Amino acid sequence: MSTPTLTGVTATGSDFGRMWDDLHDVGRDVRSTGYRRYAWTAADLDCRAWFAAEASRRGLDLTRDRNGNLWAWWGDPDAGDAVVTGSHLDSVPDGGAFDGPLGVVSAFAAIDLLRERAVRPDRPLAVVSFADEEGARFGVACAGSRLLTGSLDAGRACALTDGEGTTMADAMLAAGHDPKHLGRDDDTLARIGTFVELHVEQGRGLVDQAAAVGVAGSIWPHGRWRIDLPGEANHAGTTRLADRDDPMLRLASAVLAARESAQRHGAVATIGKVHVEPGGTNAIPSLVRAWLDARGEDEQSVRSVVAAVGAAAGADPAEESWSPEVAFPDELRDDVAELLGGVPVLATGAGHDAGVLAGAGVPTAMLFVRNPTGVSHSPAEHADPDDCLAGVEALTTVLTHLLTDETAGSS
Amino acid sequence: MSTPTLTGVTATGSDFGRMWDDLHDVGRDVRSTGYRRYAWTAADLDCRAWFAAEASRRGLDLTRDRNGNLWAWWGDPDAGDAVVTGSHLDSVPDGGAFDGPLGVVSAFAAIDLLRERAVRPDRPLAVVSFADEEGARFGVACAGSRLLTGSLDAGRACALTDGEGTTMADAMLAAGHDPKHLGRDDDTLARIGTFVELHVEQGRGLVDQAAAVGVAGSIWPHGRWRIDLPGEANHAGTTRLADRDDPMLRLASAVLAARESAQRHGAVATIGKVHVEPGGTNAIPSLVRAWLDARGEDEQSVRSVVAAVGAAAGADPAEESWSPEVAFPDELRDDVAELLGGVPVLATGAGHDAGVLAGAGVPTAMLFVRNPTGVSHSPAEHADPDDCLAGVEALTTVLTHLLTDETAGSS
Repeated sequence: MSTPTLTGVTATGSDFGRMWDDLHDVGRDVRSTGYRRYAWTAADLDCRAWFAAEASRRGLDLTRDRNGNLWAWWGDPDAGDAVVTGSHLDSVPDGGAFDGPLGVVSAFAAIDLLRERAVRPDRPLAVVSFADEEGARFGVACAGSRLLTGSLDAGRACALTDGEGTTMADAMLAAGHDPKHLGRDDDTLARIGTFVELHVEQGRGLVDQAAAVGVAGSIWPHGRWRIDLPGEANHAGTTRLADRDDPMLRLASAVLAARESAQRHGAVATIGKVHVEPGGTNAIPSLVRAWLDARGEDEQSVRSVVAAVGAAAGADPAEESWSPEVAFPDELRDDVAELLGGVPVLATGAGHDAGVLAGAGVPTAMLFVRNPTGVSHSPAEHADPDDCLAGVEALTTVLTHLLTDETAGSS
Repeated sequence: MSTPTLTGVTATGSDFGRMWDDLHDVGRDVRSTGYRRYAWTAADLDCRAWFAAEASRRGLDLTRDRNGNLWAWWGDPDAGDAVVTGSHLDSVPDGGAFDGPLGVVSAFAAIDLLRERAVRPDRPLAVVSFADEEGARFGVACAGSRLLTGSLDAGRACALTDGEGTTMADAMLAAGHDPKHLGRDDDTLARIGTFVELHVEQGRGLVDQAAAVGVAGSIWPHGRWRIDLPGEANHAGTTRLADRDDPMLRLASAVLAARESAQRHGAVATIGKVHVEPGGTNAIPSLVRAWLDARGEDEQSVRSVVAAVGAAAGADPAEESWSPEVAFPDELRDDVAELLGGVPVLATGAGHDAGVLAGAGVPTAMLFVRNPTGVSHSPAEHADPDDCLAGVEALTTVLTHLLTDETAGSS
């Protein structure tokens, strides 16, 4: 269901279908059919091996930067004003096949098309796969790009822990990446002239406008908060209701408040991760810990939702991450939309590495590929093969422009 | 905090303090300071080794019945009309030191006192430690005694799975117990003339009546239900509220309905265990699974609470276990209360192996030891040393009566 068997792709001469086949079983849970590609796990290492193999097939130079992001270079990285494209390979728990990989696979496929068409780049081109975009393991999204730009502090990143208590530093070490040099990486940043990320759409904006491909206008401000609700552990059978301090009741209030206040503020709010201690059927919990994801058109509306949830829970939500609104550069966005024949420009509630780079001043554009159901972060996530191919074509068009047009690029 | 350092106990000549010391570190989580002694785990095997060592110290014959319950015999098990006392050693997640072990430790201590006082039993005496009383791992409470009496089907028990997907049959096998012969065990049942279980009280009935020891009158009917709430996994940032099928909202309604309806029916209801899939901060859940524990004075009130929770959740709660009301035999209960000088008789909302045996027609009595806070199923569970010693004295008095009085016993 979640595998794109892209018949006709091979006929274009590209390696598109084979790349998907090679990725198909990596980190896939047989029961859920979803992907569990968490940062610095065995599945992540398999994704990285896949990336290295694709680079090698094409004679691209592989580099891993100080923060664990992977780069495959066509041309001299230090020639300046490079065009970079790509996305990420990690997933949310039971994620779909496209969120992340579509951008990486399409980047390699676009290189194949550029070469087939004998495009001669005036500047270097790189495919990037950012580390730990989903933050599924350590709770901070876009960790790889945030470390690169310095918007995530290296010390804080190292100390982040996963559900087992393993720190990000130890997880990196175990996976063969030394965390000693984590942090803002000016040398790597200086190489990037322009970044273009292609991504499957995670809503139905393109469906509504009957377009296979679109361009990102802005990314809503969004963040994650942890809400700790302590209670008093006690016996579920013998403790009178009046004597209870049961934090599950406060969780219930928080969940309902999240929906109600999001509705009121035109925002979205979700509690999708909950831990209960001790977690016994016959024990009143000693602690309920919940995570709130909230996003909206402006910061004020998001902050209002978080405040309402905190008030309902009787707790002070702890901010784990915050991403201000990202408006992609007007000129580049309009150029790209025009190059593609006037495709729709969409705002999105999803954070992306492209947003992190744009926030750090890198000229950045995003392409979206139509998602027929809008479903994402689910094994049911899908994109039609024809739309995926349209995405590769669109990306190739944009890259051709950026690589060969004297007026394009940032220098 | 949770360790009973029973100064003065050694002075009585019993081995009480040393037994607690030996149990102290078994299955104890250093962080929570609570116990995690789940059935057929390494911690459970350590508890069993402790039991075997205590039997051996006293020259008692150790037997393990077909369902994995442990017995330490003083006298010929098949002489008939045995007096049996004991409880269980397993725990809820992060349980206290007393729930279960107090009954087993007190049983061995009572044998020491009987011998010190040169009581000559007219019938055999056994200490029992029932397997898997809390049901923390496989979800069915009193599994060992229910298998013994046949009220839990052997096939169903074997197929129960823990959170990792391990079946009870495989867990038993891995722990060296062959599950092939699980099921109602008439030979073992036939040996039991009378069963007396001593247990820490899990409420404040004895505190209110200023008594160190009490006797159980009845056990409220109670049960466990699993509530599966499927939803549609989707991206937390890009899915419009109107397009969501978020089962966390139905959990919230269920939690609030449980409290409200329990209040209305004079019952208690608890949701203390919740699993969320996929459990990502930025993913709308595909499934929320919650467990409801409900108990009340009569079956009607419990059923009403469960129905109200199901209606609020839009789901049909699946019954995982049901225990009808247990009224302990009037005559034995009154004899015991009188023997102990007219101690209070209490109803309780907690299930016990004693309830399972009483329900199967075994003459059964229960003693409670005062709990100063009423807290149980928590590392903060406590009982005062003097009250524990009063419990041993009371148990010894009851056992002396049952072992030597011609009119006592069931034959």
